[in-house]
Amino acid sequence: MDSLGAYIEQKRDAWLEELCEFLRIPSISTNPDYLPQIKKGADFALEALKRAGIEHTELIEGVGHPLVYGEYTGAEGAPTVLCYGHYDVQPPDPLEQWASPPFEPAVRNGNIYARGAADDKGQVMIQLKAVEALRAVHGRLPVNLKFIFEGEEETGGQAIDAFVPKSKEKLKADAALVCDTALFAPDLPTLCIGLRGLVYTEIEVEGASHDLHSGLYGGVAPNALNALAWILAGLKTPDGKIRISGIYDSVQRPARSERASWRRLPFDADRMRAEEIGSVALTGEKKHPLERMWARPTLDVHGIVGGYTGAGAKTVIPGRATAKVSIRLVPNQKPQEVLAALEQRVQELTPPGVKARVVKIHGAVPLLIDPNNPYIEKAAKVFSRVFGRKTVFVRSGGSIPVVALFVDALQVPAILMGFGLPDDNLHAPNEKFSISNFFRGVETVARFFEAAGQV
Amino acid sequence: MDSLGAYIEQKRDAWLEELCEFLRIPSISTNPDYLPQIKKGADFALEALKRAGIEHTELIEGVGHPLVYGEYTGAEGAPTVLCYGHYDVQPPDPLEQWASPPFEPAVRNGNIYARGAADDKGQVMIQLKAVEALRAVHGRLPVNLKFIFEGEEETGGQAIDAFVPKSKEKLKADAALVCDTALFAPDLPTLCIGLRGLVYTEIEVEGASHDLHSGLYGGVAPNALNALAWILAGLKTPDGKIRISGIYDSVQRPARSERASWRRLPFDADRMRAEEIGSVALTGEKKHPLERMWARPTLDVHGIVGGYTGAGAKTVIPGRATAKVSIRLVPNQKPQEVLAALEQRVQELTPPGVKARVVKIHGAVPLLIDPNNPYIEKAAKVFSRVFGRKTVFVRSGGSIPVVALFVDALQVPAILMGFGLPDDNLHAPNEKFSISNFFRGVETVARFFEAAGQV
Repeated sequence: MDSLGAYIEQKRDAWLEELCEFLRIPSISTNPDYLPQIKKGADFALEALKRAGIEHTELIEGVGHPLVYGEYTGAEGAPTVLCYGHYDVQPPDPLEQWASPPFEPAVRNGNIYARGAADDKGQVMIQLKAVEALRAVHGRLPVNLKFIFEGEEETGGQAIDAFVPKSKEKLKADAALVCDTALFAPDLPTLCIGLRGLVYTEIEVEGASHDLHSGLYGGVAPNALNALAWILAGLKTPDGKIRISGIYDSVQRPARSERASWRRLPFDADRMRAEEIGSVALTGEKKHPLERMWARPTLDVHGIVGGYTGAGAKTVIPGRATAKVSIRLVPNQKPQEVLAALEQRVQELTPPGVKARVVKIHGAVPLLIDPNNPYIEKAAKVFSRVFGRKTVFVRSGGSIPVVALFVDALQVPAILMGFGLPDDNLHAPNEKFSISNFFRGVETVARFFEAAGQV
Repeated sequence: MDSLGAYIEQKRDAWLEELCEFLRIPSISTNPDYLPQIKKGADFALEALKRAGIEHTELIEGVGHPLVYGEYTGAEGAPTVLCYGHYDVQPPDPLEQWASPPFEPAVRNGNIYARGAADDKGQVMIQLKAVEALRAVHGRLPVNLKFIFEGEEETGGQAIDAFVPKSKEKLKADAALVCDTALFAPDLPTLCIGLRGLVYTEIEVEGASHDLHSGLYGGVAPNALNALAWILAGLKTPDGKIRISGIYDSVQRPARSERASWRRLPFDADRMRAEEIGSVALTGEKKHPLERMWARPTLDVHGIVGGYTGAGAKTVIPGRATAKVSIRLVPNQKPQEVLAALEQRVQELTPPGVKARVVKIHGAVPLLIDPNNPYIEKAAKVFSRVFGRKTVFVRSGGSIPVVALFVDALQVPAILMGFGLPDDNLHAPNEKFSISNFFRGVETVARFFEAAGQV
């Protein structure tokens, strides 16, 4: 073990406790009731940057939730890496399904359980501790660093969307490091080079001007929930085909070689079904599951509001109903075009007696990164070294809108180097993060900073 | 004005205040959190029976919510009328749509606004005040009376269902008077001779064992809400046809003469659409709206639970989802048969990757009453006299399960004499009851008691 490894080893308990402190803050960004906790999350990240030895730090406020910014410019002549993470988390519902409370971190079986453990506070902390370790071991940093941590990743990234395009000089860098993804399998170093985009909407249906008694008006009054069911049912078939005109026209199928590399990955669809999903079957199109998850558009209903949902029976005909619906996009699809096509399709599907409209909540463009650049190559190399296996290149079915933002506005290659695991229960009860990956993550990021300093 | 009319007139303020007191009790039967208020509602009704001069009263407890019972046997040689009402109310959601709080009765434009004003506390009070007025004016009652007020009308009537069949001797009567319906139009005396039945269910869908991230698993994981939408969409067409095998086989169309009498009623479908429903169009089958509401089975979705319904976006694939769904039944349809057919249809509609089941919440048989019996004839006559117009015979699209119970178990004709109005917002925000109908109701019921004593 070299001195970097030794330093990391000796810091285990202190760093875990510091991570727990971060995880105890319920910085839920999708619900305005949690604004004070968002501020607390931002303050924690800011202080942690200072503690790591980043001299220039600031809280950027104005639009949306605060951005946490930090800058180190002491590595003269060396390149600059812009590091990204987010301090906000998903809501913890349904609360009753958590084995331990979502904001009281608990260690079990080598994992730390808490909302935000993997997505993304654990990975923000990895970057901070890589800096601390390098400074402790070398007395200086081998590369120039800029940090930007946002508090709206789970809710559209309004603040960072506004900030990045007008701060090109401030954020100028040679590469962007984004720690918000997962290893493809335990111990398998993984770089993600593709992300799906997203169009997230609410479909609102309005029938009667108020709720009605189904005994009195059943048979003549439009029912907003029945209408919503017809609309939703018409958006996708049970075999996974999205029924929106033109939606597949611009879909670019991955190259044969990329698909071949996916088939070599340690992937067992039935294990995923049984252990990660827990359903009687997988669903979707007749294509390889990895292609379905990474390179095909999909449509999901996330929640429905309307009528009576309390205990027991209420015979109400709901006047209004709303569904949260999103479409995941793949390279070459444009969020605006898909949104327009969805709007048109919803109108086609709207039955007599009701009005429907589609409200855009947020969106993200899909992205594909060229793996042939020196920063990706260095990242793959150090990743292989720390984990002792050859780094694989994958895509992700999720959206990290900020990656497209960095690529577009700052013209930098993005390195999606994440340390989560596929079964980390992101956005679900019992989110966790592997403690061993946390420490290997710190070492990998530290060694990437060293290597990036040499480009 | 005779002495009965004069007595009623002088009691206006006192009786309204007493009604308000009853309406202030949030005796919501569908939500177990309100058990203490249910008890309070029962106690109020019991005390009100005593105040009205009914000497023998009792609270019948054991199964479900208490039944309030009262008995007057002093009219020797006269028939016995069994009077029914319910002291429980619907939940008040959505609260924000009430102009005044649901449990703080407010008088506006000749109406009293409160949850339960028309359904059914106002009509329970009518019966009590008819008794009080007759005793005050005549010093005695002209007919023997039994009262049974239940606290579970809105939630399946478990207690009364258990009590009536085993209490045939106790409840022995010559006719049953049920005050829980509405006039067909303001000032138009109306007797209801038909009720729809009901099968109320929850359809539960189970896909993944837990909620999943739609970025990671969108394209392969079953989505319980999408699946529920396909199932619900397949149960009914947008033109109102229920798509459950055999459901129309036993439907008995009303006689031509009854349908002709409906066409003579003061009914304006477009006025109903605009003023009562407030939608852009009426929906449903290509039949007269009154036939659709009174004599056709209908299917409505009342509420959907699953996924994320808070503010903003959460990209979750819900593992479970539930819909509250009911079917209204018409004469000759059997709840058990319809439930079985619904269960089979739900299985047919269940897409791959999920399991679905239908849970019965409660049911009611449909009912048609022969109008040619002396009690109905007397009721029609006094009703015409108090309101100054000829009594019409209608049906109701709603279900009053207890009516079938009385007819079946006690073999009595049921007189559905109600004083609500079609726009009383039952089961919806801003429920109201006409104050003038309250007092005319007291007089009509009192005169019916007088007339029934002569049968």
